[in-house]
Amino acid sequence: MNSKTPCVILVEPQLAENVGMAARAMKNCALRELRLVNPREDHLSAKALSASSNSEEILQQAKVFASTEEAVADLQYVLATTARHRDQTKMVYNADAGAAAVATRLANGEKCGLMFGPERTGLRNEDICLADAIINVPLNPEHCSLNLSQAVLLVGYEFYKTQAAISAPGLVTNHTTVADKEKVLLFCKNLESRLEQFANYKDEHKKEKLVINLRNIFTRAEMTEQELNTLYGVINYLSGK
Amino acid sequence: MNSKTPCVILVEPQLAENVGMAARAMKNCALRELRLVNPREDHLSAKALSASSNSEEILQQAKVFASTEEAVADLQYVLATTARHRDQTKMVYNADAGAAAVATRLANGEKCGLMFGPERTGLRNEDICLADAIINVPLNPEHCSLNLSQAVLLVGYEFYKTQAAISAPGLVTNHTTVADKEKVLLFCKNLESRLEQFANYKDEHKKEKLVINLRNIFTRAEMTEQELNTLYGVINYLSGK
Repeated sequence: MNSKTPCVILVEPQLAENVGMAARAMKNCALRELRLVNPREDHLSAKALSASSNSEEILQQAKVFASTEEAVADLQYVLATTARHRDQTKMVYNADAGAAAVATRLANGEKCGLMFGPERTGLRNEDICLADAIINVPLNPEHCSLNLSQAVLLVGYEFYKTQAAISAPGLVTNHTTVADKEKVLLFCKNLESRLEQFANYKDEHKKEKLVINLRNIFTRAEMTEQELNTLYGVINYLSGK
Repeated sequence: MNSKTPCVILVEPQLAENVGMAARAMKNCALRELRLVNPREDHLSAKALSASSNSEEILQQAKVFASTEEAVADLQYVLATTARHRDQTKMVYNADAGAAAVATRLANGEKCGLMFGPERTGLRNEDICLADAIINVPLNPEHCSLNLSQAVLLVGYEFYKTQAAISAPGLVTNHTTVADKEKVLLFCKNLESRLEQFANYKDEHKKEKLVINLRNIFTRAEMTEQELNTLYGVINYLSGK
């Protein structure tokens, strides 16, 4: 169970509200398993549940541990998220490379975890040394402080991207198709045929440029057949036809 | 001024606190210019300033506009962030592809903007049609609601990544260098020389396997010279030398 997503380990989170918001961020990224090491407040309090905003099940199923060692005991690959440079010899990944490293281990059948420290201080060195490597989220070095749930969101988002095989949705056409080039050119020629009396059309050189420009404009617009019909209507109206 | 980063346009934000948190997220991502269209609350209120957490200057320099049209008037390329599919024929980018599109236009000298809608409803169609394309942040389709500042953070983060020429920091070694292979092998041989009386060492086949395994372990560990010295000390101690 949960073998295909990493668990999120919050080490000594201070505020129940932040745990709730972290659960919400996890759900945004399709992460499910939450582990808490010595939370200071009750993660099932009204404040936490309300902050989780429809992610209560993550809080309800969260496991509480007395130490970080116990929380990572059954995991095979753990990444620790830190903002500052740490005095430890450890591989440091950017969030995307770290997410890719986790995805590789998961595909290999390993149980993985993403570890986050307390709000004010971040992870202690004795927690970090339990992790295989470090994740740094690349942000403005002059202002890189994130709240806990934002850190979970950014790392979770990078992991989600590795899993979702997301391709750009591309051009959304609303119940119609993008016009093919023949139709676009037909429209352009129709328009051009109405320009015989246009001043710029009488000079052969200017005319050539004008035609190229117009064709570029309407080609670049990636119009649908519906939009092309709309333009025909407009031009018919303008030219009094 | 600000020609190298896109401005952030918040259309009719409801809560001053969210505007403050959005300013904080902007600073995380090194974005500077904030534009507000008809904010419901005062973006310079104590609540907003406190939520901005050391990003007050972004709020203080924010410009307020009476309409989205005025807010985008001087921009050449605008992306609208939406969570849901919209009934408009418009290019839809994932956040990373959208950020790359903006980066390309900025490099080209164009002024760009990232537009976000009100907390509850998101952008209206009449705002979206002022944008060149749409940004969708890829998230769990079963739970993709983000608060305003998180949406700004994720899109800003993707933009930051395009600008920072960020490479993985790699292995952090603390005032010492990674040991070269000669030193690692010397250590392995030293260790092996102490195993003559070890049961598995007497069977030639088992010995061969053991040596390979040990050498793999210590090679994979990417040890620094300092760590290697520590291990020498441990082994000397264990073997009573």
